[in-house]
Amino acid sequence: MFLTRTEYDRGVNTFSPEGRLFQVEYAIEAIKLGSTAIGIKTKEGVVLAVEKRITSPLLEPSSVEKIMEIDDHIGCAMSGLIADARTLVEHARIETQNHRFSYGEPMTVESTTQALCDLALRFGEGDEESMSRPFGVSLLIAGHDENGPSLYYTDPSGTFWQCNAKAIGSGSEGADSSLQEQFNKDLTLKEAETIALSILKQVMEEKVTPNNVDIAKVSPTYHLYSPSEVEAVITRL
Amino acid sequence: MFLTRTEYDRGVNTFSPEGRLFQVEYAIEAIKLGSTAIGIKTKEGVVLAVEKRITSPLLEPSSVEKIMEIDDHIGCAMSGLIADARTLVEHARIETQNHRFSYGEPMTVESTTQALCDLALRFGEGDEESMSRPFGVSLLIAGHDENGPSLYYTDPSGTFWQCNAKAIGSGSEGADSSLQEQFNKDLTLKEAETIALSILKQVMEEKVTPNNVDIAKVSPTYHLYSPSEVEAVITRL
Amino acid sequence: MFLTRTEYDRGVNTFSPEGRLFQVEYAIEAIKLGSTAIGIKTKEGVVLAVEKRITSPLLEPSSVEKIMEIDDHIGCAMSGLIADARTLVEHARIETQNHRFSYGEPMTVESTTQALCDLALRFGEGDEESMSRPFGVSLLIAGHDENGPSLYYTDPSGTFWQCNAKAIGSGSEGADSSLQEQFNKDLTLKEAETIALSILKQVMEEKVTPNNVDIAKVSPTYHLYSPSEVEAVITRL
Amino acid sequence: MFLTRTEYDRGVNTFSPEGRLFQVEYAIEAIKLGSTAIGIKTKEGVVLAVEKRITSPLLEPSSVEKIMEIDDHIGCAMSGLIADARTLVEHARIETQNHRFSYGEPMTVESTTQALCDLALRFGEGDEESMSRPFGVSLLIAGHDENGPSLYYTDPSGTFWQCNAKAIGSGSEGADSSLQEQFNKDLTLKEAETIALSILKQVMEEKVTPNNVDIAKVSPTYHLYSPSEVEAVITRL
Amino acid sequence: MFLTRTEYDRGVNTFSPEGRLFQVEYAIEAIKLGSTAIGIKTKEGVVLAVEKRITSPLLEPSSVEKIMEIDDHIGCAMSGLIADARTLVEHARIETQNHRFSYGEPMTVESTTQALCDLALRFGEGDEESMSRPFGVSLLIAGHDENGPSLYYTDPSGTFWQCNAKAIGSGSEGADSSLQEQFNKDLTLKEAETIALSILKQVMEEKVTPNNVDIAKVSPTYHLYSPSEVEAVITRL
Amino acid sequence: MFLTRTEYDRGVNTFSPEGRLFQVEYAIEAIKLGSTAIGIKTKEGVVLAVEKRITSPLLEPSSVEKIMEIDDHIGCAMSGLIADARTLVEHARIETQNHRFSYGEPMTVESTTQALCDLALRFGEGDEESMSRPFGVSLLIAGHDENGPSLYYTDPSGTFWQCNAKAIGSGSEGADSSLQEQFNKDLTLKEAETIALSILKQVMEEKVTPNNVDIAKVSPTYHLYSPSEVEAVITRL
Amino acid sequence: MFLTRTEYDRGVNTFSPEGRLFQVEYAIEAIKLGSTAIGIKTKEGVVLAVEKRITSPLLEPSSVEKIMEIDDHIGCAMSGLIADARTLVEHARIETQNHRFSYGEPMTVESTTQALCDLALRFGEGDEESMSRPFGVSLLIAGHDENGPSLYYTDPSGTFWQCNAKAIGSGSEGADSSLQEQFNKDLTLKEAETIALSILKQVMEEKVTPNNVDIAKVSPTYHLYSPSEVEAVITRL
Repeated sequence: MFLTRTEYDRGVNTFSPEGRLFQVEYAIEAIKLGSTAIGIKTKEGVVLAVEKRITSPLLEPSSVEKIMEIDDHIGCAMSGLIADARTLVEHARIETQNHRFSYGEPMTVESTTQALCDLALRFGEGDEESMSRPFGVSLLIAGHDENGPSLYYTDPSGTFWQCNAKAIGSGSEGADSSLQEQFNKDLTLKEAETIALSILKQVMEEKVTPNNVDIAKVSPTYHLYSPSEVEAVITRL
Repeated sequence: MFLTRTEYDRGVNTFSPEGRLFQVEYAIEAIKLGSTAIGIKTKEGVVLAVEKRITSPLLEPSSVEKIMEIDDHIGCAMSGLIADARTLVEHARIETQNHRFSYGEPMTVESTTQALCDLALRFGEGDEESMSRPFGVSLLIAGHDENGPSLYYTDPSGTFWQCNAKAIGSGSEGADSSLQEQFNKDLTLKEAETIALSILKQVMEEKVTPNNVDIAKVSPTYHLYSPSEVEAVITRL
Repeated sequence: MFLTRTEYDRGVNTFSPEGRLFQVEYAIEAIKLGSTAIGIKTKEGVVLAVEKRITSPLLEPSSVEKIMEIDDHIGCAMSGLIADARTLVEHARIETQNHRFSYGEPMTVESTTQALCDLALRFGEGDEESMSRPFGVSLLIAGHDENGPSLYYTDPSGTFWQCNAKAIGSGSEGADSSLQEQFNKDLTLKEAETIALSILKQVMEEKVTPNNVDIAKVSPTYHLYSPSEVEAVITRL
Repeated sequence: MFLTRTEYDRGVNTFSPEGRLFQVEYAIEAIKLGSTAIGIKTKEGVVLAVEKRITSPLLEPSSVEKIMEIDDHIGCAMSGLIADARTLVEHARIETQNHRFSYGEPMTVESTTQALCDLALRFGEGDEESMSRPFGVSLLIAGHDENGPSLYYTDPSGTFWQCNAKAIGSGSEGADSSLQEQFNKDLTLKEAETIALSILKQVMEEKVTPNNVDIAKVSPTYHLYSPSEVEAVITRL
Repeated sequence: MFLTRTEYDRGVNTFSPEGRLFQVEYAIEAIKLGSTAIGIKTKEGVVLAVEKRITSPLLEPSSVEKIMEIDDHIGCAMSGLIADARTLVEHARIETQNHRFSYGEPMTVESTTQALCDLALRFGEGDEESMSRPFGVSLLIAGHDENGPSLYYTDPSGTFWQCNAKAIGSGSEGADSSLQEQFNKDLTLKEAETIALSILKQVMEEKVTPNNVDIAKVSPTYHLYSPSEVEAVITRL
Repeated sequence: MFLTRTEYDRGVNTFSPEGRLFQVEYAIEAIKLGSTAIGIKTKEGVVLAVEKRITSPLLEPSSVEKIMEIDDHIGCAMSGLIADARTLVEHARIETQNHRFSYGEPMTVESTTQALCDLALRFGEGDEESMSRPFGVSLLIAGHDENGPSLYYTDPSGTFWQCNAKAIGSGSEGADSSLQEQFNKDLTLKEAETIALSILKQVMEEKVTPNNVDIAKVSPTYHLYSPSEVEAVITRL
Repeated sequence: MFLTRTEYDRGVNTFSPEGRLFQVEYAIEAIKLGSTAIGIKTKEGVVLAVEKRITSPLLEPSSVEKIMEIDDHIGCAMSGLIADARTLVEHARIETQNHRFSYGEPMTVESTTQALCDLALRFGEGDEESMSRPFGVSLLIAGHDENGPSLYYTDPSGTFWQCNAKAIGSGSEGADSSLQEQFNKDLTLKEAETIALSILKQVMEEKVTPNNVDIAKVSPTYHLYSPSEVEAVITRL
């Protein structure tokens, strides 16, 4: 009796008979369990908003960082494994700093995104920086460069897309529908803040407070909102 | 009881008892799920046309790049895993730039294609640039060199063929039949544009718009059509 | 018959179909078997208290170290595999010493925690310092730097959180509930000592003595309590 | 219960209990699926003829290369995986060029063949140039050196034989019988051309045209026939 | 059907679902089969006593070394695989010699023990000195340094404890009970000798003779008893 | 249920529970399928004779080399995988040349044999020259040095023996019996030629001709018989 | 259903749940199949005697070496895989030569034995000199140094013992009993020769002749007996 075809393909990064890469698909499952994050691009800049999931009242809310700065002109929101995201962000920070040092100018948002995805793509290859499994994280990368504001979305396969608006994480399906209804190209940054937070509110189980959401903008530089700035947006809802 | 023969051959890159390489066959399955791409060679140059599959209205159509420039005189259309294609294209860009630097002249289209296939062939070998699995992508490589225009087709096994016209991706079977009917060696570039897009239209589920297809030509240099140039071809259908 | 999906993902550090990392989850099980440790942050400094589990009267109690100094301004309590914890602490000691040497100032508590987690995250990667499995240990890291006192909690996945108070180990569930009831931001260090030890007393099976618990504080420097200092706290209960 | 003997021997390059190397046997299966190639040695030189299998009318026949030049005085016909053959030929080209450079004279046909087989033999050894599986290709190597014309046949095991005439590929069994009947040592090169093509015609399913066969000779230098030269031989049949 | 959780964790040094490290537990089994060794710390120094298990009258008793000197001020008794113990002791000897050379003073007993355990912990890591499995040996390390006499106990997991008295090997359970009964902090070295040998006598199947036990002390330097010195202790029983 | 013992020992070069090395035994099977070779030592020198197995009349008999020169004073006959034998012989040639270069004198026959066996023994060790499986070949090594003529026999385990006469390959059993009957220490070289060929004739299925056997002698230098010299021996039968 | 414990421990050098190392035990099986060897220590020196197992009358008896010289003052008898023993002896020869070169004096017999066992212990570790499996050989090492004559016995686990007399190989059980009866410390070397050979005679199936046994002594230098010297001992039986 011959073994079935499937016996031939074992490994972290190999195709299944249907042409699929299962480890990547499983990593995407990990993100579906993650907290929701939303990004909206406007002509004035990009807004990022995330749910923080403070699991205990003894946790320091400010230490749950789900929006991080990459460079002056780039920030990102994440969903999935936080430790993996930190590694990717740290990698991107070094890339953008090296670029500034070598060329005397900021790295474009697309190049930064490409650099992140190059690392993500090569999981299982035994490179020094790559991991033995896919990075279990999706990112919304908000930036501003010579082409104006831009928003990128990356997934664990190392693929990226440029978007006008995008939601990731456990509530992404509902949030994406709402974004399609409410987004238009003429939104002001202030309107985008309100839309992002109102959609986040819909998909969160708890009441929204300055403690359990984070908001940031890149317009044209990265700025993470203080609790009182978040409070101001909540008040507008 | 002896085990069956098949127990002896396990691994990413080993033969089955019938002399087959399953990982390569599975990677080819991945391409059958990909978007359709078409290439047509004329005496005036080569035309490439691809379906873009814009999955969400919030996606930036121009960021879904399925036709890319390799060098001034070479471009390629892809079907399959986009992140894999980007790695191959980036490899080819470095090879063509090095060639220009070393020899002061452009790399021929065949040499460029061979360089891409050398990388693809060596999957599972643990080389620095090669991957641990086949690249899950097929390319149509359009170019123009001292031998005039040429069109190459590569598959995940690292094999390549020179063609007069070729379709790849999920709609390739029907599109190849149409190409055989409509192709002749005396087509003008303009006629080739029309044929490529009309065949693409047949295999696409959605209406063709400047947003969901890309067209490029190499004649004798690479040029990606602007939305209005695509619109002009659509109008001719 | 095709194999099930799960056949595709084997390895120390790979995702399960549900997007989970089992080795990390198993390591967390190891910690649930560990002795209980408690940390409380006050404005005056941070208190750490641990159960020592002296399994034989012939054991030298002072040699069972479950609270260790990392640097003058940082200490940590551990639960899980002691030998793993020693490796992590030794790594952190070198990092903080190198930082002092290179920059002439102490490393911040967050950077020290991040350095520990970077090492923990990369298990199974074949790096020189990383292990082939997750570190089977959780740490409560107490420190004092330019931002005042701080308390971090790390788990085997290489993730960390900043907390006001936290319990780890076999009795952590009950201890965490008690901490939420009794913690407030205006506790004095003395009150924190009493709360930590009274909660530890609840979850321990034996009577509390200076032999079977350790207490330490960082306020603003690390200090491990002598048996008589521990006795004094016991008396206050 | 003891396991059977066969449980002990797993691996790409290990013996079966009967003393066989299965991966090599499977690679030989791959060649049995390949297109037929024929070589005939005469006193005037060696003739090679191959079936090209043009699978689509849109394919450029001249780009399907199944006879390739190794050096001025050596050419080869192949059957099996084309991409593997290209790697072997490229290896041989470098060896012969290095030999010319180092010794100022052409490499002998036997040394060139030995160099090819050394590479083929070491599959699965992790060497830089070797592959993780056998090369899935057989070669007919035609050459002319100080010992006059010679024809070698190599198989995936890295073994080679010197022959007067030989057929490889899917039609090799019938072709070899015909060769034994028709070969004699006094054939002229022109007679050999006719015999090679007439035998190829018998084993091919399609009509023979200048498009779907290639002919080459080494006499004493390598020459690939132009379509009109092939046409001339066809006319003689 | 999904595979069970346990399918995910294979490897020499990986966690089981319950958070256990089986190779370490199996190595501990190896020690339970070993000969019994006993250590007792007094104010005057530390006594070590071991059963030698002379399996044949043709064996040279003095060549069965189960107590070995590490440095002038440190010795150790072992139970388990003798060859593994020799490797650990050799490692410790080099460490203590290097320390003397670098710092001009003896290494402390705790640092020496830590160095042994660092090596033991890293089994399966592919380091130069570490093994691919746990060291199948437990040690009782007796020493004397600036902190006075000390006795350490190490197990195959690379964990160590400081003890007042401890038994290891096949008879350790009964011997540990006896030690708890008979030990007090005011024992003289002579009393400790008597207790150690009387307990060893209880757990040994044969009659105690100067041939089948070894005794050593560190007080403050290492001394292995001669047969007549052992005889003298036996006489006192 | 515990697994059986045999589950513990997998690998190319590991013992079975009975203390056997199966890959070596399987390689020996490969040789039992090989062509027969015979060696006879006389006071005047050593004679080697092999069956050539010309499988096709189109094969060049002189290209089927089963007796090869190692150095002026050493030759060898082989049975088994020809490509493996070529690698061993090439290794021995380099060793003997290096020896001549370094010491200005020929390498002894025993040292040459030992060098071959050292390479054969280390299969599966990942060394640069060794293979991942045993060499599937046996050799009869005939030589002449300061100790006079000598004949060695090697097998795939890397073991060698010195013999007066020996047969290897598929007909070795019958041939060895005949050799024991006919060998005596006073044979002349001419008598040895006749005996070797007459025994070969008994075990071959075809008629013996100068085309399908090879004969060589080392007396005191290596000499491969020409077809007419072989013819002369045949005539004497 | 959980897998059983035994599923966790696979590998060449890993513990079984009972704390056993199976590859070592299997290697010991290999030795039980080996020829018998005997060593006896006297005050005048050490005698070694081995059975040679001449499997064919065409084999050169002197080429079956089962007693080998390591250095002037050390020799060894072996049982098990001859090729493995040669590797160990060659290693020991280099060690003793290096020692003489570095220190200007012979290496002690114990240090030489330890060096052999260090190599044997590290099987499966991937070191340059170590093998991927245990060495399938036991040695009786006879030597003479500043401590007088000594006899060591090593097994595949890398453990060694000093003995007064010892037998290894297939007949070791009976031979060891006889040795215990006949050995006493006052034997002369001549008496030891007679005892060794008479015991060997009991366990051998064939008649003892100078051809099928070897005898050597170290007294104080290594000497392998000539056939006539062996004959003389046989005569005394």
